[in-house]
Amino acid sequence: MLENIDLSKTLKKKEGKELLEKLDTEVAALQRQARELKIPVMVVFEGWGASGKGRLINRMIQPLDPRGFKVHSIQKATQEEELHPYMWRFWNKIPSRGRMYIFDRSWYTRVMRERVDRNMTREQVVCAFNEINSFERMLTVDGMLIIKFFLHISKGEQKRRFEKLESSPETKWRVTREDWKHNKQYDEYFSICDEMLVNTDTEYAPWHVVEAEDDGYAAARILDCLVRSLRSRIQQETEREKQAEPYIQTAPPSGSSSPLAKADLSKDVKKDKYKETLKEYQKKLALLQSRIYQAKIPMVLGFEGWDAAGKGGAIKRLTECMDPRGYEVVPTASPNDYEKAHHYLWRFWTKMPQAGHIAIFDRTWYGRVMVERVEGFCTRAEWQRAYREINEMEEQLTEAGVIVLKFWIQIDKDEQERRFRARQENPEKSWKITEEDWRNRAKWDEYEPAVNEMIMKTSTAKAPWIVVEGNSKYYARLKVLKTVVEALEKRLGKETKQK
Amino acid sequence: MLENIDLSKTLKKKEGKELLEKLDTEVAALQRQARELKIPVMVVFEGWGASGKGRLINRMIQPLDPRGFKVHSIQKATQEEELHPYMWRFWNKIPSRGRMYIFDRSWYTRVMRERVDRNMTREQVVCAFNEINSFERMLTVDGMLIIKFFLHISKGEQKRRFEKLESSPETKWRVTREDWKHNKQYDEYFSICDEMLVNTDTEYAPWHVVEAEDDGYAAARILDCLVRSLRSRIQQETEREKQAEPYIQTAPPSGSSSPLAKADLSKDVKKDKYKETLKEYQKKLALLQSRIYQAKIPMVLGFEGWDAAGKGGAIKRLTECMDPRGYEVVPTASPNDYEKAHHYLWRFWTKMPQAGHIAIFDRTWYGRVMVERVEGFCTRAEWQRAYREINEMEEQLTEAGVIVLKFWIQIDKDEQERRFRARQENPEKSWKITEEDWRNRAKWDEYEPAVNEMIMKTSTAKAPWIVVEGNSKYYARLKVLKTVVEALEKRLGKETKQK
Repeated sequence: MLENIDLSKTLKKKEGKELLEKLDTEVAALQRQARELKIPVMVVFEGWGASGKGRLINRMIQPLDPRGFKVHSIQKATQEEELHPYMWRFWNKIPSRGRMYIFDRSWYTRVMRERVDRNMTREQVVCAFNEINSFERMLTVDGMLIIKFFLHISKGEQKRRFEKLESSPETKWRVTREDWKHNKQYDEYFSICDEMLVNTDTEYAPWHVVEAEDDGYAAARILDCLVRSLRSRIQQETEREKQAEPYIQTAPPSGSSSPLAKADLSKDVKKDKYKETLKEYQKKLALLQSRIYQAKIPMVLGFEGWDAAGKGGAIKRLTECMDPRGYEVVPTASPNDYEKAHHYLWRFWTKMPQAGHIAIFDRTWYGRVMVERVEGFCTRAEWQRAYREINEMEEQLTEAGVIVLKFWIQIDKDEQERRFRARQENPEKSWKITEEDWRNRAKWDEYEPAVNEMIMKTSTAKAPWIVVEGNSKYYARLKVLKTVVEALEKRLGKETKQK
Repeated sequence: MLENIDLSKTLKKKEGKELLEKLDTEVAALQRQARELKIPVMVVFEGWGASGKGRLINRMIQPLDPRGFKVHSIQKATQEEELHPYMWRFWNKIPSRGRMYIFDRSWYTRVMRERVDRNMTREQVVCAFNEINSFERMLTVDGMLIIKFFLHISKGEQKRRFEKLESSPETKWRVTREDWKHNKQYDEYFSICDEMLVNTDTEYAPWHVVEAEDDGYAAARILDCLVRSLRSRIQQETEREKQAEPYIQTAPPSGSSSPLAKADLSKDVKKDKYKETLKEYQKKLALLQSRIYQAKIPMVLGFEGWDAAGKGGAIKRLTECMDPRGYEVVPTASPNDYEKAHHYLWRFWTKMPQAGHIAIFDRTWYGRVMVERVEGFCTRAEWQRAYREINEMEEQLTEAGVIVLKFWIQIDKDEQERRFRARQENPEKSWKITEEDWRNRAKWDEYEPAVNEMIMKTSTAKAPWIVVEGNSKYYARLKVLKTVVEALEKRLGKETKQK
């Protein structure tokens, strides 16, 4: 994409001033409209060293209302960021609806600068492109406008700019030895950038290569692009409101071969055996936790299940002997307003554990394809694409070394009723049962196919669903503990072998 | 406070079990009540190495509902934290109303462990105690319940515990060379801890020294303390709702000697002179920004003023030539629900700039003593104590090396009306004027004494208010630029001299 770029373009001073003023006025008005329509915007600046990113960003933001935007300057990863999957740091920085975030360097650093400096395998590079495209696709389909600029200058121009910076004592410090190294490696860089542009130039988030040797010209190109992109997105929004969504028929799995029907709920374990085995597993788990902490292996455990299935009890037996410094139970309630103003996966991404830690989610991102689907809190198109989005997120986690296990605790309808009634009669537990629980129960038959479809579509080899037979609480708790212990032992075994 | 502690206390197995079960039930019920009453809680665990913090925290959280609490394990500061004033990292971690955060080590690290390892001067230690007390006072008066545990064991017991840990290959790594160093320095540590306890044992956030040689005894003490503290705080809350607030008469400054009246609004500057001086200052500022970036000096600029006084225009002239990677304009709107669920200073603390960066606040924390006071969004007691709270926050910033400047842009009532009308007639600017602006204008005479009182009470030598004569926009913009440039030059001059 960089081959046929004409870098000699300039803007005449007088005409340029008028043009820029006109664009400024348009940008200001469009920013206000986008804000009113609650459109979130991300503007990415990538490009050669000394291509003028800082200057051009500052020029671009001049007409903007500061109440609506924020500039993120992406530096070397912090320690905390290094301890998380790569895209975590960017999920933490997505704008809420109606805000515009501007990125001075971005999630592309890994496939540009870092690719030259570190040695990435071909497989890692492809994987990185996939993660980027997945990230941008999920966000844009959710309503985000992503505008990406690549500022292009020639090798000679870059050299001239470095020399100019070095000639003044006030700016000399800005040119590093690395910069010169990159100038010498310009040609290698060129093909890397070109490959990056080609692989991540998508219909939902296209690249704009900006000829950046003349500041005036570049500024006008950027503002013009911003105007066009905002205008077209705003138009789309107004039209979207009018359109009804197409109805898509799906055939969820059902009958006796469905994952839930296959669960043998008669499984049970005696109290004595339970107590003994529980102790044994808890002891093992405490040691394993300390070992993965040292080995910096992170783990994500998701718990879903019918109301009163025993999620809380299972989590409690799991954490009882753990070190609280290494685990966190993340309870998931219905999203608050600020969370709703983001992509639905945002609030989960931000809570993913750092290396060596365990995050236990009491209810999870699967709410999208269960409660939100059944209750109509999201559209059909939204929950239908969620399966792929969730699989992609979990793949990113497992790729980054996270152990991911998802538990569905299964009970039958009669058992649920028995437990509801028992809770209501116990004064210490009666607060646990609300009107809503009974209402949800009435919708059992709507939830069941949703759960079956979810388990079918999102159980993967690396991030499996474990259906836990839960009519016997003892049996369920032991099965959860056993599964976690075995998964940890398996991973630690592998790691040891590799050494 | 540690001298007369009896460390031989234990709990008999049988009685202990019953007692602990009873306490668990009580704690669970009280946590639910506190949550319903929206009481935020912080529980701090400090104490000797190997005193069992992790184990006892995990014991304490067992009866709690995970939807209501979170454990923060305070480790060595991250790079980002190191680049901010010390208390910033803890302001970032305060619970919202109704949540309970448990701290495994806390803001006390600096006056314990770090005090032994680094050499803190007497003055720094006193300053640190003041910062802690100020933090805890602000939060508790705002409704936070703070419970602080110090887990106490003897030198001999600590040694035995280290030896036991070292004897097993699974736990050996937990004992560091530093730990042994600290055991050798036990006596020095003892007096440091004692001094810390005495200096930060306040009526609003008292310490509970827990005899921690026997786990069962310690667990019971902790749960018992938690029960008592929660119960008394809950009782206070229910009573508070009944009490009317006492009325306190204040005499705000007024007349011709008030800060606002003293501003000479006839000050003006010619267009030619303005353009020329503007360029000159902007050029200086761009260089100065790059110098403080290198010198890692942070800066906070606050802008307040009447509607249409020209805050936005002044900020724009300031940032026009800056590097966007080093500054951020932080616009302040009315707080959202999540912000309202925290102390009012929380949302500003979290946005304080890191070393080398400039944060420009378009409206500030002074809203507490202006709009919130005048419109009755907070109680009289709340805005009255805010002067001291704000002064303390700004003192912490300047102590940490931040340059703090606060601008009040002053115009008179006639000038405001002229500007409102001019905006309404200009189609590109008419969106800037809303009904609310006219409503606020009608309350000018209520705002004026509030502004005067604010400037009188919160202008300090290190964080001064600059009243900017704003009837002439040109004059106002230059004055702001000049003040910023001079403040930077002064500081950089000092730093150079010190070297």
